[in-house]
Amino acid sequence: MRFEIHILSSGTGSPTVIHNQTSQLLIVGRYHFLIDCGEATQFQLVKYGYSYMKVSHIFISHLHADHYTGLIGLLNTYNLNHRTAGLHIFAPEGMEEIIQVQLRLSAVSLRYPLHFHLTNTDEESQLLELKELSVTTFPLKHRLPVTAFVFREKERPPGIRKEMASALSPEACQAFKKKQDFRDEQGSLMKWADYTQPAPSPRSYAFVTDTVYLPEIASLLKNIDILYHEATFGDDMAEHAAEAAHSTTTEAALLAKAAGVKKLLIGHFSNRYTDLQPLLFQSRQIFPETYLATEGSSFHIPYNR
Amino acid sequence: MRFEIHILSSGTGSPTVIHNQTSQLLIVGRYHFLIDCGEATQFQLVKYGYSYMKVSHIFISHLHADHYTGLIGLLNTYNLNHRTAGLHIFAPEGMEEIIQVQLRLSAVSLRYPLHFHLTNTDEESQLLELKELSVTTFPLKHRLPVTAFVFREKERPPGIRKEMASALSPEACQAFKKKQDFRDEQGSLMKWADYTQPAPSPRSYAFVTDTVYLPEIASLLKNIDILYHEATFGDDMAEHAAEAAHSTTTEAALLAKAAGVKKLLIGHFSNRYTDLQPLLFQSRQIFPETYLATEGSSFHIPYNR
Repeated sequence: MRFEIHILSSGTGSPTVIHNQTSQLLIVGRYHFLIDCGEATQFQLVKYGYSYMKVSHIFISHLHADHYTGLIGLLNTYNLNHRTAGLHIFAPEGMEEIIQVQLRLSAVSLRYPLHFHLTNTDEESQLLELKELSVTTFPLKHRLPVTAFVFREKERPPGIRKEMASALSPEACQAFKKKQDFRDEQGSLMKWADYTQPAPSPRSYAFVTDTVYLPEIASLLKNIDILYHEATFGDDMAEHAAEAAHSTTTEAALLAKAAGVKKLLIGHFSNRYTDLQPLLFQSRQIFPETYLATEGSSFHIPYNR
Repeated sequence: MRFEIHILSSGTGSPTVIHNQTSQLLIVGRYHFLIDCGEATQFQLVKYGYSYMKVSHIFISHLHADHYTGLIGLLNTYNLNHRTAGLHIFAPEGMEEIIQVQLRLSAVSLRYPLHFHLTNTDEESQLLELKELSVTTFPLKHRLPVTAFVFREKERPPGIRKEMASALSPEACQAFKKKQDFRDEQGSLMKWADYTQPAPSPRSYAFVTDTVYLPEIASLLKNIDILYHEATFGDDMAEHAAEAAHSTTTEAALLAKAAGVKKLLIGHFSNRYTDLQPLLFQSRQIFPETYLATEGSSFHIPYNR
């Protein structure tokens, strides 16, 4: 099953020739999740060749323009392309009003069901429960209400060991997959652990954007495979970062270290940085497994048995 | 004085790798006018190296997403860049509501004055009167109220002929520039036409987007230097064009011919056309001075004496 993070764009509000505004595509199995949708997200999706029609759930962290203004265009494009599949949007209060006022004034009537879900910007909460994974959200701290999103695969049942599968009854297999022992017709006990191999560990991704440094969220990010954390500024601008309610490269790395994540992606780079290598260097001093979330880059999480 | 049309983007709603959504920059002397502002207009302005901070007036033809959704991002960027100069937006009813709801929900308070002006979508009317030029608007016909914009330089006073300038009194020069004859101290009559050369002809540009073919507007476009007219479809799609309330290459050319314009630019190309040459060919069969308004192309109107 795929578990891939695709960086569509990674800049801030002001346009540059290098960066567009925040947006990421997370593909987990058959699901295509869009995380934030800054201006021109639909162009980035097309530019990198993604199947943008497949997006079923869109997660918006907060209502600063560089994180949501691409949404109305994408919704219109879905309409032009005769989408019929429902679309779920998770966002703070206000997103629905912004979209509805535009649809009304453009006299657009959507051909597909659009479902808005409010994110809880006050406390950690469950957002979405699917067969394969769950999505939770928790508040960050910025100039507007903003939340992080955490995507966690569910624990899967152990697999029947291939060399034994043909000799087992369907009833035995069913029990073993539930981690239950099974007594056969002769009355002898078959232990599930003997006939199975552990399922791969559930994989996880966390998206943390536009926030001051919050050391206390490390406990909510324990053992995450990949953490995206904004690092709008380098250490040279630490004071300004605090004023602007953003984080630095070092702060992102400190959090990744405290949470014990496997990999850190930094992004949301201020347009003053044309060379990103110093930013990467700063983070790696503290957390060596740091990578730049630059436009067009992809990070796959393989199964870990 | 500069009179330049810069095509920022020329596509329709659906994103492609070739086109962005409609936007043009018209530079007349010291004025930078933005005409329509589809998604990602601010990125196009940066990509082509224009001084986007200089834009003082923005003209929005109608409220379909591909013509206005770049506006909120641009307004935010002006704020981030500490703009203080006022900005005028000319648009149909609804544009102000769309912007204000987003500024309110993003908790953005602008550092610069923003002035909205309603376009009259019912009849031809004057929109803007400046020292050097005037802008008028008139209704087109599409699925939403939409207007065209016509930019016309004003007639300028005749110039004093260089070889004679030094021998003339300031009073004589003043009279001649008003096309008045002047009687000198000796009582002899100096005829203004003998001492002046005609000013260059006023230049003009018309922007006609998203409309069914309207032969009757030719009279409003008489002798325009450059006419931009949408040609969303080629002749192969004439029936569909009428249904979708758009124009074809041939219709744009027929209008240019009837109006007697000097040059025709066609754009707003449907994303089904990856090769635009057949579209150009169709228009040129009727109106040879047709050009493609493709991204990044510029059209200068020189002085015509």
